Amino acid sequence: MCPAPSSLVHFPAPESAQSDRPHASLWGFADSEFVVESDAIVLRSSRYANGGRPLTQFAPFVKHAVGVAFDPNDRHEFVTPKVPPALQCADLVAELRAILGEQRCTQEDAVRLRHGHGHHLEEVYEVLYGALKRVPDVVVYPENADEIAQLLEIAQRHRAQLIPFGGGTSVSMALHCIASERAIVSVDLARMNRILWLDPETQTACIQAGAVGRVIEQQLQEAGYTLGHEPDSIEFSTLGGWIATNASGMKKNRYGNIEDIVLDLSVVTPRGEVERLSAQPRTSHGIDVRRLLFGSEGLLGVITEAVVRVHKRPEVQHYGSLVFPTWQAGLSFMRQLSTRQTVPASVRLVDNLQFQFGRALKPQSGSVWAAKLQKLYVSKIKGIDLSQLVACTLVYEGHADEQAALKRQVEQLAKQYGGFGAGDAAGKDGYNLTFGIAYIRDFLLRYWTMGDSFETAVPWDKVNDVISAVRSAVVEAHAEQKLLGHPFVTSRVSQIYTSGCCVYFYIGFHYKAVTDPLAAFKHIEHAARVAILEAGGALSHHHGVGKLRAPYLNHIKGATAQSWMRDIASKLDPEGIFLTGNQGLSDEPSAGPRAKTSS
Amino acid sequence: MCPAPSSLVHFPAPESAQSDRPHASLWGFADSEFVVESDAIVLRSSRYANGGRPLTQFAPFVKHAVGVAFDPNDRHEFVTPKVPPALQCADLVAELRAILGEQRCTQEDAVRLRHGHGHHLEEVYEVLYGALKRVPDVVVYPENADEIAQLLEIAQRHRAQLIPFGGGTSVSMALHCIASERAIVSVDLARMNRILWLDPETQTACIQAGAVGRVIEQQLQEAGYTLGHEPDSIEFSTLGGWIATNASGMKKNRYGNIEDIVLDLSVVTPRGEVERLSAQPRTSHGIDVRRLLFGSEGLLGVITEAVVRVHKRPEVQHYGSLVFPTWQAGLSFMRQLSTRQTVPASVRLVDNLQFQFGRALKPQSGSVWAAKLQKLYVSKIKGIDLSQLVACTLVYEGHADEQAALKRQVEQLAKQYGGFGAGDAAGKDGYNLTFGIAYIRDFLLRYWTMGDSFETAVPWDKVNDVISAVRSAVVEAHAEQKLLGHPFVTSRVSQIYTSGCCVYFYIGFHYKAVTDPLAAFKHIEHAARVAILEAGGALSHHHGVGKLRAPYLNHIKGATAQSWMRDIASKLDPEGIFLTGNQGLSDEPSAGPRAKTSS
Repeated sequence: MCPAPSSLVHFPAPESAQSDRPHASLWGFADSEFVVESDAIVLRSSRYANGGRPLTQFAPFVKHAVGVAFDPNDRHEFVTPKVPPALQCADLVAELRAILGEQRCTQEDAVRLRHGHGHHLEEVYEVLYGALKRVPDVVVYPENADEIAQLLEIAQRHRAQLIPFGGGTSVSMALHCIASERAIVSVDLARMNRILWLDPETQTACIQAGAVGRVIEQQLQEAGYTLGHEPDSIEFSTLGGWIATNASGMKKNRYGNIEDIVLDLSVVTPRGEVERLSAQPRTSHGIDVRRLLFGSEGLLGVITEAVVRVHKRPEVQHYGSLVFPTWQAGLSFMRQLSTRQTVPASVRLVDNLQFQFGRALKPQSGSVWAAKLQKLYVSKIKGIDLSQLVACTLVYEGHADEQAALKRQVEQLAKQYGGFGAGDAAGKDGYNLTFGIAYIRDFLLRYWTMGDSFETAVPWDKVNDVISAVRSAVVEAHAEQKLLGHPFVTSRVSQIYTSGCCVYFYIGFHYKAVTDPLAAFKHIEHAARVAILEAGGALSHHHGVGKLRAPYLNHIKGATAQSWMRDIASKLDPEGIFLTGNQGLSDEPSAGPRAKTSS
Repeated sequence: MCPAPSSLVHFPAPESAQSDRPHASLWGFADSEFVVESDAIVLRSSRYANGGRPLTQFAPFVKHAVGVAFDPNDRHEFVTPKVPPALQCADLVAELRAILGEQRCTQEDAVRLRHGHGHHLEEVYEVLYGALKRVPDVVVYPENADEIAQLLEIAQRHRAQLIPFGGGTSVSMALHCIASERAIVSVDLARMNRILWLDPETQTACIQAGAVGRVIEQQLQEAGYTLGHEPDSIEFSTLGGWIATNASGMKKNRYGNIEDIVLDLSVVTPRGEVERLSAQPRTSHGIDVRRLLFGSEGLLGVITEAVVRVHKRPEVQHYGSLVFPTWQAGLSFMRQLSTRQTVPASVRLVDNLQFQFGRALKPQSGSVWAAKLQKLYVSKIKGIDLSQLVACTLVYEGHADEQAALKRQVEQLAKQYGGFGAGDAAGKDGYNLTFGIAYIRDFLLRYWTMGDSFETAVPWDKVNDVISAVRSAVVEAHAEQKLLGHPFVTSRVSQIYTSGCCVYFYIGFHYKAVTDPLAAFKHIEHAARVAILEAGGALSHHHGVGKLRAPYLNHIKGATAQSWMRDIASKLDPEGIFLTGNQGLSDEPSAGPRAKTSS
C-alpha cells in the first residue's frame, strides 16, 4: 500500500452504525416505524419529518392506490423468525475463531438470519413469514485485509464460500444464499468502517469498505467536507456495497456516480490482494482490472478500502421545487435540462400519483405542499388539472455565485414548459421523503399489502413506452391472477443523462385471500421486468443483477460477453470461493451459452 | 447487434482520410510542413493559422530553448526508408487475399513501414534514419466485423499475430513490432470509418472504430451535432484508437473523457464477438467486461464500433485567455477552478517558456498576443515580470445564458489570483497552436534537434514537485551525457480534476556530434519518467502504456493486479493472437512477479 499523503485529516473510529432493532430484518432504525395509533397511521420517529403526528391522509391513499380499504384491525402478523440450521462446519469455525476470536466469529441464529438476506420484497417476505431456506453458516467480522486473506486461505482449505456483507441493503438478492453443500461464511465489514485519512490538498479520502454512508457523510461534514454520494439507502449502505453494486447517488449531477467518485480501491482476492499503490486524478494505465469490481456483487473478492474524491462542504445548499401541468411537460423539461453543461445536484420528477403519495404522508396541518398549493390554486394554476400535475424537486450545491446563476437558468427553462416554482421547503420535503418511504413496505406487509420498488435506465425516446408498458404489464398480471382491487404503479425520473434517464417505479397490491402471495408478486414483478426490457429499458440503472435479475442477462449481454465473465471469474477464482450465484456465476459448471473457443 | 433506433440521421461514407504525403511516416497532412525559406522558418500550409509567412522569431527561440543556434544550412538529412523484409508467409497471405482480395491485403514496403510505427520520437527517428528492425508482414483492410472474425480464424491457423491499426498516432510504441517468428498482420480499420447512424432523440451515434476524429467532427457538425472529443491528435486519430488508448480530449470538462463518451462498443475477439445489444445512459449490469477494452492497446481484440454520446452543436462557442503574473498564481487559479461544479470546456495553463514558444510561432506582424500585450504593458501589467508571466487559454461551449454566466464567474475568480483577460483571439490562437506544434518535432530533427512530449496525471499538491523533478532530471541527464547547449523543458496543465491535473511536457535538445542520439534521448526520457513516478505522478494520463512504458508498470500496479491482467489476457486469448508486447503481455511466458495461486 502506498504511504498516506503528508498533511492529513484523521478521524476517530465511529460508533457502531449497526441497527439494534428488535426485528433486525425490517428496514431502518430501531427508533422509527410506521404504526397505527387510534386508527390513524403514524410514523413513530423523532428522526424524520412528520414523525409522531397522525397521517390522516395515508389510509385513504392506500385505498386509492390499491383499491382495497386499509383496515387497521386486519393484520397479517409476522411469525417468529425461523432460522435454517447451520451446516456442520465445526472445523472451519474452530479455525476461524483461532484467528478472530469468538466474538468476531458467530453462529448465532439471529445474526446468521440477518446476514442471509437483503431488502428485496421476496427475501423480506420469506423472513417475516418464516420461509427463508438457507442463510450463512457462520458470520465473521474481520478488521483488516490481512485477516481477510487468512479467511480466504481457511475457506479454501475447507471448500467454504464467502459472501461479503456491507449494509445488507441489497435489493437484487445478491445476499440470498442458494442451496449448497459448501459452508457459507458471511464476511461482515462492519469493523472496517473508518475514514483512514482525508487529504485536504488533493480533496481525496481513503475510506474502509464497511463504512456506512450516513456516518461517512457525518464525519466528513464535521471536518468541513462532503462525499456527496447519496443513494436512497445512504443511512445503512456502505462504500464497499456501493462499489459492488455500481451505485448511483441522488446528487450524481454534482458529485458523480460511484464509478466517478472512486479513484482507486483495494480488494482481497483468491490470488492475493489487488493493492492500492497511488490514486491519480485520471490515468491511461492500460487494462484497468480494478474496473471489474464495479458491479461485482461479491464476486472476485472482498473490497476492503477505496480512495474517493471528496469536496469542501458546499458554500450553499438550496432546495427547490417546480410544478408542471402534465407529465409530458415535466419530462420535456427534464430532457431539455439534460442538454445543458450544468444541472442541479439533484433533479427528480414524480408522476401525479407519487405526488399524491407524498402529500398523503404529511400530517394534515403541516403540509407545506398543501398550503403552498392552496395559494397557487388561486394565483397561478387555475387552468391546471390537479389530477395531471407533476412535481420536480431540486437540490443545488456549490459556490454561491454559480448556484444562484444556475437556479435562475433552471427556473427560466421551467417556464418554457409551463412549470413554476412551488417553494424551496417543498423541495426539501420531496428530497427527504425517500428516507421515510423506505419504511412503508414493511409496514404495509402486515396489512396484507405488498409491493416493492425497481428501476431501469431508459433512452429518452423510450421513457413513456417503458412506463406505459410496465403499467399495462402490471395491470394485466394483476388481473390474470384475479387479485383484489387494482395494482399501484407509480414512477419518477430520478436521474438524467444526455441520452436518457433513470426511471424508478413503485408497485404494490393487496394480497389477502391469495394462496401464494409471493408467487403473485413474482409473477407481477417478472411481467414488469420483461415489459421494461422489451420496451427498451435496461436491466438495472443502479440496483444490480444479483440473483434476482440474473435470469434476464441474455437480454442484455451477448454470448461472448457472458463467456468472458465466466472465464474471468473461473480464472481469478478457480475454486469458486466467491461464486455464490450472483450474475449466474456459481461454482457449478454453467449450462449457459458458450462462444466458440479456440481449438 | 441490436436494431438501429427509428428516426435516424444517416451519413454518407466519408472520403478517405488517409494522408498521401510523400514520406508517410512524418506527422501530419501532406500540404503542411515547416520549411526554411530565405533563412526564415515558414509553416508551408494553407490549413493552419500563420501559414506561409516567415516566423522570424522561431530560429532565435530555438537557440534560446536549446542553447545552440539554429543553422538552416546544417541538416541531418533523412535517409531513404529501409523497410525490413517480410517473413515468409505466402500461405497466410493467400488465405487473406482469398477473402479480402489483393487490394485490401498488401505487402507493399511503404505500407508495411507506415504500419510498423506510431509517433513516438524513438520510432520516428528509427524510420527517418533507417534503423527500424521489424514491421508487419502484411497489412489488411477489413470492411466489417465478419471479415475480422475470418481474419482471426486464419491468423489462428497460421499462428500469426494481429495488430489493430487506427490513425497510427500512438506515442506509446503500441504499434512497434517486436522481434517474433510469428507473422504479424496489421489490421487497418481505414475502411470501417463511417458514422452508421445518429439518433437525435437520444443524442447518440454509432460510429465505426476506424473513423477519424476530424472527419467525425466535420460530419457531425454539418448535421448540427458535435462529439466534442478533441485529443491533440484529432486530425488523424480514430475512435477505436481513442478507446484502446483511454484517450482524453481537450474539451473533456464539457464532453467527458473517452470513457464518459462511449456508452457501448463491439469488439471481435478470439472467443467471438462481444456485441453491442443496447446502449443505455448508465447501467448496473454486473461485471462490465467491456470496460477492459478502455486502454487495451490492441490486446484482447479488434474494436469495431461504438455508440457514443453526441450533443447538439453548441449555441455559443467562446474562446478566452487570461494572463497571470506567476506560475504559482496561475496554478492556484486552476486548482480553485477545479472545485467548482462547472468549468469551461477547455482550460489550459502554459508556463512562461511555452508562452514564449507560442509567441515565437507567430509571424511578427500578425501577433495578436504581442499587440495585445503591448497595450497591456502600458495599462495594466507594469508590475509584472515578463519572464514570469504565464497564460491560460479557455474554451466555452454550450447554451448562451449558462456560458455567459460561467465566463463572468471565471474572470471574477481569475482576478483573485492577479489574472486578467488577454483577449479572446489569443485564446483561440492558443487553443489551436497544438495542431501546428505537432509538425515541429519532425522539422527540427532535420536540424540536429530532437525532442518529444509526454504527460502525466498528478495530485494537486505534487504538481510543482513533479515539474521541478522532471526539469532537474532532464538537466542532469543532459549534463551527464555532455550534450551541447542545454535541454528544453516546458510544461502546461492541460486538464483539471478535483484531485489534480494532467501535466504535459515538451523536452528537446541539440544532438549534433552525439554518437548515439537515440540512446541519449532514451536516457533523458527515462530519467524524466522515473522523476515523475518518484515525485508522485502517474505513468500516463492519456497516452497509455504500450511498449514504451511497460517497464514501469511495477511502479503503478501491484503483483496481483498484474497477474490478473496476464491471467485474463491468456484466458481470453490463449494463443496470444493479440499479445504482441503491449503492457508487457506477449505470447511468451512472462517472467514477471506472480501472486500466490491456489494449490
